[in-house]
Order: sequence, then C-alpha cells, then structure tokens
Amino acid sequence: MNKNFNKIYSDFLNLIENKLQYVIGGAKPDSVRIPFEYLIDNGGKRLRPILAMLACGVCGENPEMALSSATAIEILHNFTLAHDDLMDSSPLRRGRATVHEKFSPSVAILLGDAMIGYALKLLPENKDAINLFFDAHVVVCEGQALDMDYNNRNDISEDDYLEMIRQKTANLIRVSVLIGARLGNANQENYDNLEKFSLNLGLAFQIQDDYLDLMGKSAEIGKEIGQDILEGKKTLMIIKCRELAKENSDKKLIEKFYKNNGLDKSEIPAIRNLMEKLGIFDEIKNIINNYFEKAKNNLDKLPENQYREMLGWILEKTSSRQS
Amino acid sequence: MNKNFNKIYSDFLNLIENKLQYVIGGAKPDSVRIPFEYLIDNGGKRLRPILAMLACGVCGENPEMALSSATAIEILHNFTLAHDDLMDSSPLRRGRATVHEKFSPSVAILLGDAMIGYALKLLPENKDAINLFFDAHVVVCEGQALDMDYNNRNDISEDDYLEMIRQKTANLIRVSVLIGARLGNANQENYDNLEKFSLNLGLAFQIQDDYLDLMGKSAEIGKEIGQDILEGKKTLMIIKCRELAKENSDKKLIEKFYKNNGLDKSEIPAIRNLMEKLGIFDEIKNIINNYFEKAKNNLDKLPENQYREMLGWILEKTSSRQS
Repeated sequence: MNKNFNKIYSDFLNLIENKLQYVIGGAKPDSVRIPFEYLIDNGGKRLRPILAMLACGVCGENPEMALSSATAIEILHNFTLAHDDLMDSSPLRRGRATVHEKFSPSVAILLGDAMIGYALKLLPENKDAINLFFDAHVVVCEGQALDMDYNNRNDISEDDYLEMIRQKTANLIRVSVLIGARLGNANQENYDNLEKFSLNLGLAFQIQDDYLDLMGKSAEIGKEIGQDILEGKKTLMIIKCRELAKENSDKKLIEKFYKNNGLDKSEIPAIRNLMEKLGIFDEIKNIINNYFEKAKNNLDKLPENQYREMLGWILEKTSSRQS
Repeated sequence: MNKNFNKIYSDFLNLIENKLQYVIGGAKPDSVRIPFEYLIDNGGKRLRPILAMLACGVCGENPEMALSSATAIEILHNFTLAHDDLMDSSPLRRGRATVHEKFSPSVAILLGDAMIGYALKLLPENKDAINLFFDAHVVVCEGQALDMDYNNRNDISEDDYLEMIRQKTANLIRVSVLIGARLGNANQENYDNLEKFSLNLGLAFQIQDDYLDLMGKSAEIGKEIGQDILEGKKTLMIIKCRELAKENSDKKLIEKFYKNNGLDKSEIPAIRNLMEKLGIFDEIKNIINNYFEKAKNNLDKLPENQYREMLGWILEKTSSRQS
C-alpha cells in the first residue's frame, strides 16, 4: 500500500516540478529567472501543493484539476521564504545560502514581488479559489507582521503565539487544502472537515517545526540547532519555560533570553536542559500529537477512497519526521 | 468648462481617498496599518485611478463601476514605490522620508507585500480585469528588474530604455485605462484606441518625469534636482548625450558618468550645460510632445462625451506640469 502511495506522491511531485520549471522558464530578465530557479530548486517536499491535489482527489475529482493552483501556492510559499529570510537576516535555508545572501537584498525583494505575479497567473477561473488565494496572501503577510512585532515584545502569551502561527503558517496549509476542495467540487460537509483537518495539520506542523529546531537532526534540516533561541523567537516552548521556571538561576536564564532578544550559542545546552527538567518537551510533544490526532479524526469523516488514505499516510509521515 | 472638470476630478478623488482609507482601516496589525497610511497619504494626484474611472465613463458606464479596481491600481502603484525606494536606497519621496527611512527596511518590504493582498481583494469578478491586473503586476516587476540591470550596464540603447519604461511605468497606466474600459464594456474599437492612448500617455509621462528631474521645479517635487544623475540612471537624455558628445572634455564628463555610475552634485550644472549645448532638451521636449500629441489623436477617435473631454483636459494638465 505504502509503495503505491510513494508512486502517486512521486507522480504528483513530477507534475508540480514540471509546472514550476515551466513558470521559471517564462520569467525574465535573467536577474529574476536565475534566483527564481535557485530558490525553487531547494529539494522541498512540496507539502502544500501535494495537499491541494489530494484534497481535490478526495472530493472525487481528478487531482490534476488542482495542479495549477497547487503550483501557485508553492510559489506563494516560496515568496514568503525569500522575504522572511531577508527580514530575519537568516543566512541559510535548508543548508544553502538564502537568496539575499547568494544574490543581494534587492534581488530577494524583487524576486519575491515578481513571484507573486507568477503565482497569480496560475490561478484558475474559479472565483472561490481565487478569493481563497487572495485571503491567503493577506493573512500570511499579517502573520509575518505579528511575528516581527513579537520580536519587540516580552509579553507574548500562548494564545498570541497560536494566533501568529495560525496566520503565518497554518492558514496557508488550510488554503492549499480548501482550494483543492473547491476545485474538487466538495460538498459543504467535506469542505468543513477538510478545513478542520488542514488547520489542525498546520498547527501541528508549525509547533513541530519549533520543536525540531531545538531537538531535530540539524544536519538534515540544514541549519544550526536552536536557531529560534539565537534569534529570540518566542515559541510555545519558550513561553511555557518562562511560565514554569521557579528556581532563581532558571528564571535568570529565561529572563536573559527575553532581555537580550535571544541567547548565545553556548547557552543552548542550558536552555535545553532547563526545558527537559521542566517537562516542556513532553508537554509540547503531547500538544503536537493532539493536533495530529484531531487532524486524523477529521480525515476519518471524509469519503473513503485512496486519496483519503493517502492523506492519512502523509499525516503519518509528517508526524514522524525528525527534521 | 474646466471648472466642471475640476469638480468631477475632486469628486472622483474623494471617492478614491475614501476607498483607500477604508482599506487602510482594515489593515492589521498597527505595524502594517500605520506605515500604510503614511505611504498612501502622500498628496499624490491619483492619476492612475482617475484614468481608470474616466476610461469606464468614456465607454458609457458609470465611472464608479471602476472605483474598486481603480483603488486596487493605486495601491499596487504605491507598493512599487515602497519597494523601489528601498531597492534604490532613496531617502525622500515627494519631500518626505521614504517608508524604509521613516520606519525600517523590513517594514517597507512587508508593507509592500501586504498591500498587494489588499489590492487583490478589491478586484471585481470580471475575469478580464483580473487578468489585466495580474499581468500588470508581473510586468511592473520585470520592468523594475530591467531598471536594476541597467544600473550595471553601460551599453543601454534608446530602445532598451524605452522598453524598460514601457514595462515599468507605461504599462501600469495602460492597465489602469484598460481595466476601466473593460468595466465600461468597451467595444473592440474603443478598447484599442484607449490602449494606444494610454501607452502614449504613459511613455510621455515617464520621459517627462526624467526631464523634470533635471529641469523641473525641485521644491514642488520634493526632491533634489538631478537625482537621476546622482544615481547613475541611464535616461534617454543621458543616452542621447553620449551619442552626441564630440568634444573631448564633453566625452570625458559623460564617460565619467558611465564609469562611476553617476556624477557628484557639483557636476550637475556641467551636465546640464552640456545637454543644453547639444540641443538635447529641445529634442526631448519634442519627443514628449510627440507622444502627448499621439495620445490626443487616439482620444479624438473615442465617443464624444464629457469623459472624453475630461481625458483631454487631464492630458493638457499633465503635459504642462512643471514638477
């Protein structure tokens, strides 16, 4: 069974990569096309477009009906990476120099801008799908604004954090699935279940990302362990750490993180030990698993077919990733 | 007659400003909304949205049918200003600090990104209008890429320059008019004439902008005289200057411009004198007037009504601007 899913996955992936290459081939001048190709050829899993195609399939239509929109979403996602990396001054992404490092900040800005246009031109005539995409664009930007605001605030609550990742990450996964659902002519019940599924998956995915930033296999994600700690990101783990720290030396460490907007590389083992001691990793893993569990339950209410099974398989693969 | 046009203009302007304020009011968080308001409240003439509404009117429909799209175009135009100013490191726009100077580079990037989303959400259900807008987005970015490429090239021809301003400036004026035409249910003949009109107007407008950068009333445009010379922009005037300079000292000055990617402030009078001597200002004024003339002829083929007359009035006002 899994063998079959691997085959479908790689078939979908081929279609998406071909479509991406087609769009890149039409980009001009070279000062846009070359960094565009560099950014896109990043060995990514293409989770969002795959989800869009499967959502279309699970509703009973040919998944390829969603291919253009799926590709548009992948381009939109990559535009956010290019601009966010520049705003965050991140030097690396997936083990390679980011666009602004490899080329220049201006190239990163303009490439991102142009990519939005290339994505828009892939959208289908379906007004609902178009509106979902427009909303996704606004929400992902407003989510990034929240994320940046949080850099300068020391009072971020768990709810604040969840709202930010809902907008910045989970919503784009939601929209990927919902555009697929619309193009698959989903009925209201399937549409609603797919919406819940995608939001739960999206939240699980981002919290897991934060967890793996500190506890994942760094070589595979191509970045340093604890990047979020170095950059002062107020993740759910940090917020919980601050809530639970009682001993003076522990409080001192966490307040140093807040005061200096991050810690030094040398302090990462200490903050990791503190989180371990406070049981935060177990708690976070429970939260992540809980969202994955909910997503699984949402899936179970969808029509039984190979695409539903394959969505379950992707959920499995995602929940067990180590990087 | 002109009094009436002033009244219509200010009525349209009110509608556009109100719509802009409505969109700004819905932007969040404050880190997006506040710079958005700052950028938009720039005392601009709103040429593009006014043209969209008049084009709709000239085709026989109520100009307000184009109000939302017109506002979307104005927002798209302002997004390009925010990002271009950052890429060009321009400190001032219309006498005020640019967004990246007033706030930060990250704010300028993210604001521009979000504005694209706000613009998209204003688009009507009309598929032709939507596609024109998507194309406009791609073309304006590709035009900016050409402009940036030209910074690093010393072989820009007059045709290269014209192609760049066609993409970077004229096309957005073209699309403003054509979206208005589509929403005004233009027949093919009117649509084609409006397309020619808008392209000629757009080319005239940009070449005039370059001319005024060196010869306009600097106080009113709120920037220093000769900014393009300081930044090393290969305008039509510079290209012609290089073609026509024969004397050694003249050639030396122009090659210095090319070699150093611009000249010092102290050298602006010299380059201005050289252009005067070579008759370049007269030639450029002829070229500008020629495009305005063509645009006027295109107008004359449109249905006779007050909106056609008003487009002629705007053409007059634009062609006689001093800043």
